[in-house]
Amino acid sequence: MTQLLRVQNFTVSSDGIGAREDQSLERPFGPGIDPGKLFEWGWTTASWPNRDDPGGSRGLDDYFTRDWDHNIGAEIMGRNKFGPQRGPWEDHEWQGWWGDEPPFRTPVFVLTHHARPSFTLSDTTFHFVDASPADVLAQAKEAARGKDVRLGGGVSTVREFLDADLVDTLHIVVSPLKFGTGLRLWESPDELRDRFHLEVVPSPSGVTHHLFWRK
Amino acid sequence: MTQLLRVQNFTVSSDGIGAREDQSLERPFGPGIDPGKLFEWGWTTASWPNRDDPGGSRGLDDYFTRDWDHNIGAEIMGRNKFGPQRGPWEDHEWQGWWGDEPPFRTPVFVLTHHARPSFTLSDTTFHFVDASPADVLAQAKEAARGKDVRLGGGVSTVREFLDADLVDTLHIVVSPLKFGTGLRLWESPDELRDRFHLEVVPSPSGVTHHLFWRK
Repeated sequence: MTQLLRVQNFTVSSDGIGAREDQSLERPFGPGIDPGKLFEWGWTTASWPNRDDPGGSRGLDDYFTRDWDHNIGAEIMGRNKFGPQRGPWEDHEWQGWWGDEPPFRTPVFVLTHHARPSFTLSDTTFHFVDASPADVLAQAKEAARGKDVRLGGGVSTVREFLDADLVDTLHIVVSPLKFGTGLRLWESPDELRDRFHLEVVPSPSGVTHHLFWRK
Repeated sequence: MTQLLRVQNFTVSSDGIGAREDQSLERPFGPGIDPGKLFEWGWTTASWPNRDDPGGSRGLDDYFTRDWDHNIGAEIMGRNKFGPQRGPWEDHEWQGWWGDEPPFRTPVFVLTHHARPSFTLSDTTFHFVDASPADVLAQAKEAARGKDVRLGGGVSTVREFLDADLVDTLHIVVSPLKFGTGLRLWESPDELRDRFHLEVVPSPSGVTHHLFWRK
């Protein structure tokens, strides 16, 4: 089977923005963006990763949250999805935003220009790599042992891999929230139509799922 | 985690019919029903079980076909999903409609009043059981080792488990085809609204996905 590079559950505002600059420990998506609202479509489902209470909806949105780790063997993420530090690592003690039980449960490749030793938290091992998109994808595919690789974001990382034409499928959730300014995935999803099929599926929850796959 | 009993990818006509009586080896869904048309929404996707060529769509319908075996540890099916024979087994040589590589890849419990020894084809083992829905579900859950159990159909089997109130989720695909007469799952999906939440999701392919989960 072909190993795909998949973007999953990546959520942006109605104006295409996934986060703001000036991210901090307290505000991982930047000032004025409440991840609880942006991802409400997801964490209210039964299959949201690391959900620790029973219940949750099992409608359309749940098919997407439960697919998030299906046949995934590795993740690639930008440094800003790992933590808010910029520049050389100052604090190796702090091990990222993801807690003692990161939801990934696979090798995770964090893109950074600054070396740092790999470490393992529960079932997740974080590797820190300074490499081109094609090179890190090759490493991630090898680590995934035949399974697909998830491209975890953020916005800049997704755009970098799109520019390198390495992405096979994207599931982008468009929230009805409008942010105005910030890190923008697109002006319009139509920008990707030259290379991808697109299905646009409104959900009863109010978000709109955008499903892209390579032509 | 709770083990669920899930109906997945079960496809009926716009008038709620899944098959006709008088099924035969040549016409597994009965006279006048072409499974190629009824399941066109599914087999044109990339993840249709046992698809043996590359390609296929990766839009909404593909999320459902790829979820078919996700976290499934056993299947329960009615005898008519196994084969067209009725009454006592006459021919143990014939091992069902599913070929040498059945797509299930788990234990499968076939409901029948007529005993027959279990046998294995590739990764699938068929067991033949004469038991109440609750008892066969208990056997299937044990065999599933913590994973969910899929209720594979046909119509009469799904109805029997609904009557016993044992079903947790249902994904029913309503095709635009109209059959008029046959084995009917429902007069209307609204019949299940007293016990289930329902989301109705139209697909670009022309079918409508009906997603039910227990209230």
